[in-house]
Amino acid sequence: MNNGAIGVFDSGLGGLSAVRELKRILPSESIIYFGDTARVPYGGKSEDVIVKYALQDMRFLLKHNVKAILVACGTVSSVAMTALRNATDTPIVGVVEAAASAAERASKNRKIAVLGTAATVKSRSYEKILKNKDSALDIVAKPCPLFVPLVESGHISPKDKLTALAAEEYLSDVRRFGADTVILGCTHYPIIKDAIARKLRRGVSLIDTGKEAAIELARTLREADMLCEEGRDEDGIAR
Amino acid sequence: MNNGAIGVFDSGLGGLSAVRELKRILPSESIIYFGDTARVPYGGKSEDVIVKYALQDMRFLLKHNVKAILVACGTVSSVAMTALRNATDTPIVGVVEAAASAAERASKNRKIAVLGTAATVKSRSYEKILKNKDSALDIVAKPCPLFVPLVESGHISPKDKLTALAAEEYLSDVRRFGADTVILGCTHYPIIKDAIARKLRRGVSLIDTGKEAAIELARTLREADMLCEEGRDEDGIAR
Repeated sequence: MNNGAIGVFDSGLGGLSAVRELKRILPSESIIYFGDTARVPYGGKSEDVIVKYALQDMRFLLKHNVKAILVACGTVSSVAMTALRNATDTPIVGVVEAAASAAERASKNRKIAVLGTAATVKSRSYEKILKNKDSALDIVAKPCPLFVPLVESGHISPKDKLTALAAEEYLSDVRRFGADTVILGCTHYPIIKDAIARKLRRGVSLIDTGKEAAIELARTLREADMLCEEGRDEDGIAR
Repeated sequence: MNNGAIGVFDSGLGGLSAVRELKRILPSESIIYFGDTARVPYGGKSEDVIVKYALQDMRFLLKHNVKAILVACGTVSSVAMTALRNATDTPIVGVVEAAASAAERASKNRKIAVLGTAATVKSRSYEKILKNKDSALDIVAKPCPLFVPLVESGHISPKDKLTALAAEEYLSDVRRFGADTVILGCTHYPIIKDAIARKLRRGVSLIDTGKEAAIELARTLREADMLCEEGRDEDGIAR
């Protein structure tokens, strides 16, 4: 049992989608959220800069004595997990491993597409984990650099013309590729999920990385007996 | 006479348009350019953060013993000039004053529009200077938050559909307003000048802020006898 708070960080506000899921499955837990809105977006920055910022973000949360950390940022989860884990003994869950596992389970035709920032796609983080699970998987990864600025400047209506045009530009290849499972590899993307789904084939499974990471973190805490006092009696996936 | 280099900085690479103009009018001068590409864009950040970054950028240039500084960033020029000037005796030229003067001279119908980042528009930097020059001027300012991400992700062709759609969204009000002079209040915007011009009335004067600031800096150096040895004999505006 551990009554400390769970720390969550993201480059901006996209990670709040992971917080929403955490609140749903672990309603008794306290959560401290850090969104680095002064330096968002991370996705176009170099690996060195992303690692440096991620370490600073994590240290801020550790100062608040969090018992575990959820890295609710696809870019940080793709390039900085080793550096973060080397710098602390506190349990850390990123979005990549959890989302890749969910995608691998969901795909029937064994074709998976990954949407992410430039840094996430360049890191090949999802491909490496997916290929490790099943080397026969067919994978494409597509950088979508305008999705974060679009979300941040309020273009989030399902009927927004600019977001629809950007989605068409990014997703026409993915549609032709024929993936039955698409990983929304950045926690901002679920906010424009409808605009994305509209450019893909019917019935495609969209994997919400923040949600999958929240489920994974709940499992980690339960297995290590680190849920808070009330949390151990909760219904839901964490029991 | 001063053979030191001129320092130029911007949040990213947009300020290189000012460097091109500096090289044209002062071909003998040495230039040190700092583009803060790790932290671009500045335009959506808070005033405190922008001032902090601007001071860091300037100190980096001062360590290289520059004789003068051109702030080739509309956002920094709008919110941080007082803080910069309080921190050094080195001459500093920003883009706002120079571009506002050029716009005031260019406008015949006395209607001027300003395009800029969110921070630039919020600061009302251009309106304050323009109204000071002529209180009868009619001015509108329009934030264009997606123009910088569009330029940075390569959407710079005059026929680019996404840039055209963003320009239509931002400029329809400006077109109706009927300004005969439009200030491109961010040094990234000249890169998509054609896409912008296409959404405005024919014959509108577009003011390139980086270019105007370069001309202003050349004048400042000449008047203070701070041009380099060869530079004093150059042809062009700096003589």
